[in-house]
Amino acid sequence: MHDALEPADPTVGELSEGEILRRIVARTGRASATVVGPGDDAAVVAAPSGSVVATTDTLVHGPDFRLAWSSGYDLGWKAATVNLADVAAMGARPTALLVALAMPNDTRVSYVERLADGLRDACDALAPGCAVVGGDLTVSATLTVAVTALGDLEGREAVLRSGARPGDVVAVAGELGVSGRGLRVLFDRFRDAHGSPVPVDAAVLAPGEREALDAQLRPSPPIGLGPVAAVAGATAMMDVSDGLGLDARRMADASDVTIDLDPGALGPDATAAIEGGEDHALLAAFPGDVLPPGFRPVGRVLPRGADALRVGGRPYGGPGGWDPYRDWDSSAG
Amino acid sequence: MHDALEPADPTVGELSEGEILRRIVARTGRASATVVGPGDDAAVVAAPSGSVVATTDTLVHGPDFRLAWSSGYDLGWKAATVNLADVAAMGARPTALLVALAMPNDTRVSYVERLADGLRDACDALAPGCAVVGGDLTVSATLTVAVTALGDLEGREAVLRSGARPGDVVAVAGELGVSGRGLRVLFDRFRDAHGSPVPVDAAVLAPGEREALDAQLRPSPPIGLGPVAAVAGATAMMDVSDGLGLDARRMADASDVTIDLDPGALGPDATAAIEGGEDHALLAAFPGDVLPPGFRPVGRVLPRGADALRVGGRPYGGPGGWDPYRDWDSSAG
Repeated sequence: MHDALEPADPTVGELSEGEILRRIVARTGRASATVVGPGDDAAVVAAPSGSVVATTDTLVHGPDFRLAWSSGYDLGWKAATVNLADVAAMGARPTALLVALAMPNDTRVSYVERLADGLRDACDALAPGCAVVGGDLTVSATLTVAVTALGDLEGREAVLRSGARPGDVVAVAGELGVSGRGLRVLFDRFRDAHGSPVPVDAAVLAPGEREALDAQLRPSPPIGLGPVAAVAGATAMMDVSDGLGLDARRMADASDVTIDLDPGALGPDATAAIEGGEDHALLAAFPGDVLPPGFRPVGRVLPRGADALRVGGRPYGGPGGWDPYRDWDSSAG
Repeated sequence: MHDALEPADPTVGELSEGEILRRIVARTGRASATVVGPGDDAAVVAAPSGSVVATTDTLVHGPDFRLAWSSGYDLGWKAATVNLADVAAMGARPTALLVALAMPNDTRVSYVERLADGLRDACDALAPGCAVVGGDLTVSATLTVAVTALGDLEGREAVLRSGARPGDVVAVAGELGVSGRGLRVLFDRFRDAHGSPVPVDAAVLAPGEREALDAQLRPSPPIGLGPVAAVAGATAMMDVSDGLGLDARRMADASDVTIDLDPGALGPDATAAIEGGEDHALLAAFPGDVLPPGFRPVGRVLPRGADALRVGGRPYGGPGGWDPYRDWDSSAG
């Protein structure tokens, strides 16, 4: 209506809520399980097996991403992916996303459109058939993306983190430590003299650095292997969001066992594999030595001993991962 | 472990994520539809009718609430209720909530515990059997509560906002304009000379003001009447979150009809009933003149005319409600 007067890339504060929603929905596509999509009070999503897997995870400007480092596309991709991984880690197939977006009024609508593109492309690439079915827009001083993902167990039991049994093989599908290396690249290479983030220039990076950066900004865990692991009889599963050490310890505590990781199975830098977060690899325990395709052995489940986590048979002394309330230092950039 | 050293009411920055979660989960109770509750990668919720209703709505410090005005309990109550109303407006029974909480590090854990109490009590009072099944904690400069609610249609079709037909009676269950009057009380009575919010002292209020304030801080729409309306054959339904005028206009546009509100049916202050938001009453259209208990007639559906909304047969000139991107003025307190 106001095309002639409207700037080419208006801020969200210059548009109505309805207009912003129209621009998002035009990009997010349609989930195959959608019964009622965006535009009503709520969405309706098919849950053919009579239950629904549901999880929510939020990315907040500051602790979780920086505008200088993450494009809108990266942010949408990552917000979708971290939630898809949680659904996959239950052994379920992701069916739908709901996206609550809280944005400063001066956010450019092009940023929001690219965020919608990233949400859609992550779904299409990692969990075909899943898409955004609903959401919410609010004004906030802090850009915040809270995504809820739904999934279907297709008649299977959910795979909990508490089912690992002594004798099980501990296995991983997906990368370990690569996203953490990408975070290090950002902190080491793309901050100014005051420690503030500066825009990423991928041209200055070596190929390995670029790969790590891509894994940090747009992680691509093997979502489809969650159901595969469930069918193969995984006794326990979770996604590695905070570091293999910390998450393996959580699985061990929930299952009342000890997990012994084999450092020789963790690649050239075992410490990075144990400490690095945000890869969202799938960590699972299997009762036999034959693993489903895509999983590789990284350790063994032992009867519960003095330590929840061992590495190469010895207690592991490092922190083993990331706790946002313990570790976030807002002055660090 | 550190009880002797820990302050009586620590901040969330002084506690681990796990400890904060334990304190929340100890208070939120258990949803009757829970298959897998908090503590794993995702929750699993029963969806016996083979589909799930899902909606998300966010409350952000600043535009949506002020700490001087809303207690943690009020905030939890309202964050639950606005989402329960969206589920009810589809004709569904709420089954579960997921809560993404983004908080500054200096937030007192007692505030978070009271927020959890408010979430639980709103569910118990308005949607028995529904409770928090999962969530997420993050650090943020801006206190933000993003709730996702799930619901079950119990074998019925969802009631959309697009089904109203000429000849239908337009009816409402719940209050209109009361919450908006409460917002006015807050802005008029509890700000200092600079316009900044000051703590509420309910003792200085007249009974009618106190009732309006309660409706603003802890709305109590008739969630159980959503399924009742669906069973009674409602052709369209939505919750009145942004004002009867704006939301009736949305229903009329979605249904390609005109809605004519009867000002004589809107109480002593029809303008307040049309303009006031945040009551979360249920607005529905019914094909006959016999309404289900709890609903009262407020207008009539007409064939689509020049205006989506009429009041007493005339085009309505007022804005008819609230658009966060158009209306929020951060300098207003």
